[in-house]
Parts: sequence; structure tokens; C-alpha cells
Amino acid sequence: MSTPGAVVIGQSGGPTAVINQTLIGVVKACLAKPEVFTKVLGAIHGIQGIMDGKFHDFGTETDANLELVAGTPSAALKSVRHKATPEDGKKIFARFKELGVRYFFYIGGNDTAETTNIINELAHAEGYDLTCFHCPKTIDNDLRVTDHCPGYGSAAKFVTQAFMGDNLDNRSLSGIKINIVMGRNAGWLTAASVLARQFPGDGPHLIYCPEADFSLEQFCADVEAVYRKLGRCVVAVSEGIHGPGGKEIISIGEVDSHGNKQLSGSGALGDALADTLKAHLAKAWPEKKHRVRADTFGYLQRCFPGVVSETDAAEARLAGTAAVAAAVAGVKSGSIAFKRVDGPTYQVETFVTPLPTVAKDTKPMPREMINAAGNDVVVEKLVPYLKPLVGTLPAIGQLKF
Amino acid sequence: MSTPGAVVIGQSGGPTAVINQTLIGVVKACLAKPEVFTKVLGAIHGIQGIMDGKFHDFGTETDANLELVAGTPSAALKSVRHKATPEDGKKIFARFKELGVRYFFYIGGNDTAETTNIINELAHAEGYDLTCFHCPKTIDNDLRVTDHCPGYGSAAKFVTQAFMGDNLDNRSLSGIKINIVMGRNAGWLTAASVLARQFPGDGPHLIYCPEADFSLEQFCADVEAVYRKLGRCVVAVSEGIHGPGGKEIISIGEVDSHGNKQLSGSGALGDALADTLKAHLAKAWPEKKHRVRADTFGYLQRCFPGVVSETDAAEARLAGTAAVAAAVAGVKSGSIAFKRVDGPTYQVETFVTPLPTVAKDTKPMPREMINAAGNDVVVEKLVPYLKPLVGTLPAIGQLKF
Repeated sequence: MSTPGAVVIGQSGGPTAVINQTLIGVVKACLAKPEVFTKVLGAIHGIQGIMDGKFHDFGTETDANLELVAGTPSAALKSVRHKATPEDGKKIFARFKELGVRYFFYIGGNDTAETTNIINELAHAEGYDLTCFHCPKTIDNDLRVTDHCPGYGSAAKFVTQAFMGDNLDNRSLSGIKINIVMGRNAGWLTAASVLARQFPGDGPHLIYCPEADFSLEQFCADVEAVYRKLGRCVVAVSEGIHGPGGKEIISIGEVDSHGNKQLSGSGALGDALADTLKAHLAKAWPEKKHRVRADTFGYLQRCFPGVVSETDAAEARLAGTAAVAAAVAGVKSGSIAFKRVDGPTYQVETFVTPLPTVAKDTKPMPREMINAAGNDVVVEKLVPYLKPLVGTLPAIGQLKF
Repeated sequence: MSTPGAVVIGQSGGPTAVINQTLIGVVKACLAKPEVFTKVLGAIHGIQGIMDGKFHDFGTETDANLELVAGTPSAALKSVRHKATPEDGKKIFARFKELGVRYFFYIGGNDTAETTNIINELAHAEGYDLTCFHCPKTIDNDLRVTDHCPGYGSAAKFVTQAFMGDNLDNRSLSGIKINIVMGRNAGWLTAASVLARQFPGDGPHLIYCPEADFSLEQFCADVEAVYRKLGRCVVAVSEGIHGPGGKEIISIGEVDSHGNKQLSGSGALGDALADTLKAHLAKAWPEKKHRVRADTFGYLQRCFPGVVSETDAAEARLAGTAAVAAAVAGVKSGSIAFKRVDGPTYQVETFVTPLPTVAKDTKPMPREMINAAGNDVVVEKLVPYLKPLVGTLPAIGQLKF
């Protein structure tokens, strides 16, 4: 029998296109059980809002507005990038006691799971009855245990569509095009560009993920080879690429309180790669004028309204409702994870995994999904995993010449 | 009575999301009149394909594939950025005579109209019976005479949706976000970001178009003022901004054969503006850590599959069919232009304008659509013009706190 009490829900870390599906999943499941959840509160700006006493009472919202918010990208409760210190933990905990909070749901990535775990441990230490759940979200798809993460499918859809368009653009005007894709330590989002290949010769012709060591020399040689063969080349490059031992390709950026380096919000990596290639081609192929361009997809990838995977949206909602169902069933803490159900069509089920199995560390793409040369994905291994997550893509036609 | 003969269709300049609607509009209208258009040929890579003798026979295509191509972004016949020299003109003209070409349709922007005009004048000079039409396309919306240009509505829709998502992203994590938007000399595409404002306080909070002189000092002061007031700031900046007399803000890029400078395909402008702002804030507001990010939307804006204005797609098709209808009616040359029909709902009609009225020079945004300070658009003037072109936008929700 679950203890009646107030519930606090928060969102943390980088937003996604479907993070509000999870939020509204939690909210509606809680509102449906007033005998357990005596008050349903949103913490504005995550744990910062808890410390500052800034809450939103979801009891004041209409169902129609909750559904509109569910379909809206980015964190409706606003987000925060703040790793809870032991002192923060005490403040949060004091607020929970004051408000009679017995349930805490925190939506985010591995850093968010870590904060959830810290709060959970503090409750244990004090013998306070608190149910603590982490609901997964990350466009990076790099949480441990789960098969995949809500938020990834929609970002992957954006990246795929962007490469579809860019491949057609490059096909019409030729030259070399480099696109920098988000994903700090994991190549999943960059790898999703592979779905843009619709016709023979389509790009991306080269894909560089951070799971394989990157070398500028090899990169220049790879691009030149494709470019000499096809007269053009579209390249997908993860923002997280690095040399052996994590050596930086170029030096940029700030560092946040979780120790994460700023990679996005700057065109520096793409511009450096384009400049390196221009210099290389000026020597290797001086008789031709070379058109080399770089785009950095940046923040557009994670919050683009209207480019949402229907599978991802449904699963993000499920991540929220499953957490509440587990809490109601008396499970005291954990993170919601997904596994695929064997069968002819794609199906998933959720399960609860302990918070420490998801907190802090991340999971890279398996190396066997990347080719030996480290310049492409292994299509047979990646595409069956990826395709159902991304869902329907626009139809692309080509004239028969 | 129109002379029977072969028709050549080409695409030129930067591609758009709907340029193939125009292509297929011309193709299907021609295929429907075999008594006039004895053969329907596509020139691969525009006039370069004519000179090289590279053509595609549209008679070999199925209607289903033509329709699939119509819905696909970028130039299906491939494009070219090449201004016809008098020598090129002679080669093109020789090829037309050889193939019995009596009709030429060229889809593109002002440079394309100029090439069409050169070919038309050469035919006149030689007394050769050639019908020459330019069909408008440009995401820049900067062609003269016409009310607006096919391609603009879809690119504007992309920019609007990108700013909708980015405003939500910035609202959730705060800080300063600069987005660089395409549009060499015209601010139309940057100005379209205004439609992203859905709720009070929504960004973009500042909009900089090239039609108003830009000053780095004023920019820093403007951003700081918004940022101090709202705790965040989303800024739309045209890639074409410049100081008085066209003075460059930063120096970058290559120059093409039409004398156009490379502005896209590099993050340099955005990064320079972000660095300038960081330096400014470090002095003006040293007690706070400032999060300043810049994204350059780049090529994604012009060819993104799945983000298409339904109005734009229909009008792009109409630009093609109207050109063929005019040719069949005996009009010998011109460019298709749009005008709005007075009435309670948005409606357009097409008319033919002489090639020299569209060729070469472009038309900027009217200065009265930009505010006096040069840091925003005039909503009452711009939005009624813009909204019908962009069409349906995703619904955005917000929690009531």
C-alpha cells in the first residue's frame, strides 16, 4: 500500500522534443489517483525550483492544456544543469518534509539520475519515506541499461531529414559538405544520418562517431577519395570526435558543473574541419576550385516542433506513466528502462532498474556498429535497431537518369 | 498559334524545398500538349547541361514518379551557379537549333532570370523563334515585381519552427542565443522568425535584417537590455548584416561567378558575434557567469524535407503551369510573377512580367517593415504579409505559471 502524499516532478538537463510527453505522463497518472497523490507539483527549473520554493500546481491545469503542452518541445517546467551537492540535498529534503512530499519524479539523463540517486540516499539515511523515480530522456541515447532513450528517436528523425535534404542540396550543386551533429560521447545521433541514404550514391558518404578514434589525416584522405569518385561528398561528424586517448581535435569551450564541456552553440569544429580540408585539397588537387562547406546543426536537433517520431512520443509518455504505476505498486525507487519484445513487429516493454545502474556513467554506441576504418556505420547492425525508433520519414523521389 | 518544337527546362542557383513543384508543373503542362511540345527535355545542371549535351527525356517518366519528385526538395535536374557569357550563349543557342528547341523554361532567382534574358536577346538578334520563360524561385524572397517568391514560404516556415523550438529551449535553460539566418541582401527570411512569438515574452527578442545598418556596439547594448530584463535573449541575425555603406562586420568567404560572397556554410559570423557579446558582458556584468551560444542555420533552411508550406508548394506548381500556359497562348518571353487578389481570404493570381524587370537586381525588404532602431520588425506591417505564405504552424502549449 503506497503512502499518500504530495508529489514533485521536475525536468533537468538539455530539453528534447518529447520531454513534455513524459512530464504529462507523470502528471496525468498522478492526477488520476488523488487518494495516493494528494497534490501534484511541478518544480520550476528542476531542483533549483525546489530549493527556491518555486512550484506549479498541476491541479489548476485543464486536460486540454496538458495535452497541448505534451506535444510541445522543450521542458515546460523549465530545466536546470545543476548537480546536487550534499548541502543542496539537505535543502531539497527540508522542502520535501515541509510540503509533505512522498514522491519525487525527475526527468532527465544520466546527470539527472545521479541527482535523483543522491536525494534517494539522503531519504534513506534519514529514514524518511520518499519514493524516488528517474524518468529517462536524452537525445544522446547514452543511458545505461535501457535499449534506447526517449528523445533520441525524434532528434534522430531531425538529423535524418536534415541529411536527406542536405544530400539532395549537395547532389544539385556538388562540392564537399560537412555537418556537425550533437552527441557528447555517444555517436548514436550522428549515426542516425545513415537513414538519409535512399538511392545509390546518396550521402552521408562518411560518418564519424566518437567511439572510433579520429585522425585529421585519415579524414582528409577519406573525403578526398569519395570526392574524386563521386564529385561530391556529404560527411556526418559527431561534435564529440577525438583522437586516441580522448585527445582534442581543436580546443574550444566552457565546462559546466557536471564537468561537461560546451561543444554545441559554436561553429568552431565544423569550420576547423572545413579549413583543414580546403588546405589539404589545395595541395592534393590544385587544378580544381573546391567548394567546401560546414554546417553545425546545433540546438535545432533537440527541440524542433513538428519533427517528432510518433514512436518516440508514445514511449516518452509511457516512461512517465510507467514510473507512476511502479510507484503506486509500491516500488520505492528506480529508473524506467525499455526493452524490445521479441516478435515480427517492433514492440517494447518497460521495467524498473535501480538508480545507481543509470546514474553518472553513460553507455557509448557498441564499437561493432561502426566499421573497422571508423568512417561509417555497419548498416546491417545499426539500421534494424534505429529504424523503428525514428518512425515515418518523408518520401524522396529521383528522376530516372 | 504557338510553333511546335522541343522544350528544354532547367534549374539554377540555390535549391529550395519546392523548386521541383515548379519543374513538374512545367513538365506536366508540356507533356499534356504534345501537339505543341514535341519533346520535353530537362537540362542536367542547368545551362551547363545544355552546353555539355546532358539532357533527361521527361517522356520516359511515370506520372507517379513525377509527383514523388515534385514533393522532394532540391533541384531534381541538379543545379548550377554559372552566369552565361556571350560565348556560352552561342553554345547554348547552337544546341537549341540542333535539337529543334523552340521553348526554354529556366527556374531560379535573379541571376537565372539574367541568363534567361541573355538567351532570349540572342535569339532575337539571330531571328530564331524561341520562347523564353523564367520561373521564379528563391528562399530570399528578393525578386523584383512579384509580391513574393516560391521557395520563400517553406524556408520561412523552417525558420519560424526553428525559432519556436529555440525559444522554448532558451526559456528552459536561459542565457543568450544568437541564430544566423540566410538571406544575402534581403531580411525576409530573418524577419520570418517573428512568427515564432506565440506567448508574451517569447523570442526572438531582437531581429537584425540587412536593410538596416548594423553596429556591434548597438547590438551589445540591445542584447544586454533584453537579457537584464528577461534573464534570457533569443536573437535573429541575417547573414547579410553590414555597417553603413555595406561595411563588413567580419571578413570571410569566397566569391562566386555572379560576384556573390559566400556567407553560408560557415559558423564564423555567429561565433564572432557570440565572442563579442561574451567580452562585452564580462565587462558590463562581471558578477554573473553568462551563457552565450550561436547557431548558424545554414543549408538546412532551404531544403528540409517534411517542412513545407502548403501554400508555397501549390504556388510553386502554379509558377510552372502558368509559364507554360502563357507560352501556349503565344507570349514569347517573360517571368512569372504573383499578385494578391483583394478579398477577405488570401488569394493570388499570376501575371507575366518582362525578363529585364526581374533579371540581375534584387528587391530588399521595405525599410518600413523594420523598426526605427533597426533591431526588430514592425509586426503590424510584416505579419499580415507573411502569415499566409508560411501556412500552418505546429501548436505550442505553455503551463499556466
